[in-house]
Amino acid sequence: MTGILAGLRIVEGSAFIAAPLGGMTLAQLGADVIRFDDIHGGLDSDRWPVTKDGRSIYWAGLNKGKRSIAVDLRSPKGRELLAALITAPGEGAGIFTTNMPARGWLAYEALAKKRADLIALNIVGARDGTAHVDYTVNAITGFPMVTGPVGHDGPVNAVAPPWDLATAYAGAMAILAAERHRRLTGQGQRILLPLQDMALAATSALGYIGEAMVNDVDRPRFGNEIFGTFGRDFRTRDGRYVMICIFSDRHVDALAAAGGFKQAFAGIEKQHGVDLKTDAGRWRARAELCAVIEAGGAIQTPDDVGTGLKKAGELWAPYKTFRELAHDREAVLDNPMFTVLDQPGIGRYPVAATPLQFGAVERQPPGPAPVLGEHTDEILTTILGLPGHEIARLHDDKVVGGPR
Amino acid sequence: MTGILAGLRIVEGSAFIAAPLGGMTLAQLGADVIRFDDIHGGLDSDRWPVTKDGRSIYWAGLNKGKRSIAVDLRSPKGRELLAALITAPGEGAGIFTTNMPARGWLAYEALAKKRADLIALNIVGARDGTAHVDYTVNAITGFPMVTGPVGHDGPVNAVAPPWDLATAYAGAMAILAAERHRRLTGQGQRILLPLQDMALAATSALGYIGEAMVNDVDRPRFGNEIFGTFGRDFRTRDGRYVMICIFSDRHVDALAAAGGFKQAFAGIEKQHGVDLKTDAGRWRARAELCAVIEAGGAIQTPDDVGTGLKKAGELWAPYKTFRELAHDREAVLDNPMFTVLDQPGIGRYPVAATPLQFGAVERQPPGPAPVLGEHTDEILTTILGLPGHEIARLHDDKVVGGPR
Repeated sequence: MTGILAGLRIVEGSAFIAAPLGGMTLAQLGADVIRFDDIHGGLDSDRWPVTKDGRSIYWAGLNKGKRSIAVDLRSPKGRELLAALITAPGEGAGIFTTNMPARGWLAYEALAKKRADLIALNIVGARDGTAHVDYTVNAITGFPMVTGPVGHDGPVNAVAPPWDLATAYAGAMAILAAERHRRLTGQGQRILLPLQDMALAATSALGYIGEAMVNDVDRPRFGNEIFGTFGRDFRTRDGRYVMICIFSDRHVDALAAAGGFKQAFAGIEKQHGVDLKTDAGRWRARAELCAVIEAGGAIQTPDDVGTGLKKAGELWAPYKTFRELAHDREAVLDNPMFTVLDQPGIGRYPVAATPLQFGAVERQPPGPAPVLGEHTDEILTTILGLPGHEIARLHDDKVVGGPR
Repeated sequence: MTGILAGLRIVEGSAFIAAPLGGMTLAQLGADVIRFDDIHGGLDSDRWPVTKDGRSIYWAGLNKGKRSIAVDLRSPKGRELLAALITAPGEGAGIFTTNMPARGWLAYEALAKKRADLIALNIVGARDGTAHVDYTVNAITGFPMVTGPVGHDGPVNAVAPPWDLATAYAGAMAILAAERHRRLTGQGQRILLPLQDMALAATSALGYIGEAMVNDVDRPRFGNEIFGTFGRDFRTRDGRYVMICIFSDRHVDALAAAGGFKQAFAGIEKQHGVDLKTDAGRWRARAELCAVIEAGGAIQTPDDVGTGLKKAGELWAPYKTFRELAHDREAVLDNPMFTVLDQPGIGRYPVAATPLQFGAVERQPPGPAPVLGEHTDEILTTILGLPGHEIARLHDDKVVGGPR
């Protein structure tokens, strides 16, 4: 490992998205991330999407570049081995992340008896310990009631899980904050991160709670429009869609130049008494702006739109399906972040490395996800120092397993 | 400052969401984050939502707990002052984050001449430097084409901006990774983080690119259903909505117990030859599961649902509007993460501290966002060591400004 986080070792007991994605983020930056699972697989080992043979493409995506140890989580001996692994000595070791219930043998207090400077990140559902997932957290944030087409009745769920994503990266950040603190003071600590609080804090930061309280309004659904400035999807003549936004006066000029709308825009300003160079002016005249764009010649095909708008420096993008994205040259196939990888049991497909480019180290290409228990023996040997015959007995006793 | 990141100082030149939210995240953990803006305000100083007087609730949310210095960004003297601020000495200083074009006086090379171990995080739109926002990045990820109600034609945009959120927290993490590296090696570095690559890497990690390639399918819209297991919104008899999910066999039992569905569930299993204890079984029989839940007595009001399901340990949540959330006791008013804050110029409303609870330090209550240039004089005095008469002249010459 030669990434920016070389020298760190994190042991992870995780399921679903937030915890494993946080671990994968650290692994792709060069940390040694060891994921443990029950010998029969964890809660999300088979989660969809799966291949025709039932292998989880989901699991593979979230566990890239980690090592895997498979242990019978119910056996006292298995638990003892994992506690020893979590608390093994080493300056950059002694870091544990989990979204499993941190009770009993996994409680911070129990583990800290073996290593006083342990760092443990515990991702929970709500602050009272109630279980939650992105969907149940998202429901209360308010976002589903303003997402989706105008006139739609009822909530619209997010498909890209905003709170899992936020929790994954904020959790990874918290590990580094605690590791810095340990380096400065020698102290370890427990870190608690409730998925629900993460969502509520972000909803607060984005101004939604303040707006509701101070202005005493419930913002209605605005469909695909960007609230408070100008932006919307437009259908092209060949039946596809593009997103066009204006966030600055430069973008107004760019769109006017690309579409030949200079006069029409001036007409809107005059007729409605608005200044299109301001967010408020664009928001007030958004229907008129849309009418000009739709009547104009700009919306031919995404390629035409692209050529004109890109040249003019306008903010736009074509909408793509997942399959279009997967085959897209600029975004994926020719993007140096992606490598076509052979993921054992699943197949060959483009897989992303970290999006972060650190000047001091070269970006490492992505490694595949391990198969369950791929590194069981290696970890028992090198980190716990067990001799071969003892490892063999652990396999015979079904205390450890893998690879499978 | 007594947070976990006490001792760090970050200078930020930012607009929109990702960069300022990343800075706010570090500020709420105790770092001294100094935001600089043009004396006339930045691109997002007035961004919506705004109060009736036009004050930006949005800006206040994203800049909590920071200090603000206002400088004429076009004047050579102003630029010189900011370059000196960014590269000021101090072990935890010399950290710069920006999503402004990092050219000219803000180029890494230029700044590193004044401080060789400078850390600079540069958030850009796409890897080629093209401007992008969450909306244009989201368009190509594929998510808008599978979000929203079944049968809807065209894309559905996200309102909670997943890629801005991911970039904010991943960027904050990157700062800490680079600061660790500097502590170990003495080396600074530039970090490049393209918003578009962040979105593509996450889309890859979540399995969508793999699924499209390996299974050669475009996943259709499934509305509010959770792909590959069971979960959906249900309308209650009083016209509200709840989200109910099943992610484990424990949840199947909980829902059966809460709704009295044990027999009905067994009937589904027998009739359709599925095992509801598996994700695949629940996914195949989801229509039948929904019919049982809707016909049953479970869906009365959110409160009824809540009592039964919560007691049984089921995964569920009521949908709320932003205004309902803002007034919700459990989520906001009685949540120790929130403090009712007086935000100058805007009003009093509940504002979130960090969702992260570090065992070694107490969570700090949130601080308000500064008014533009609130700390101009203080920063010029204490960090740059300028005498009072020189600061007065800078004000007279309109090189610096604030507070306003």
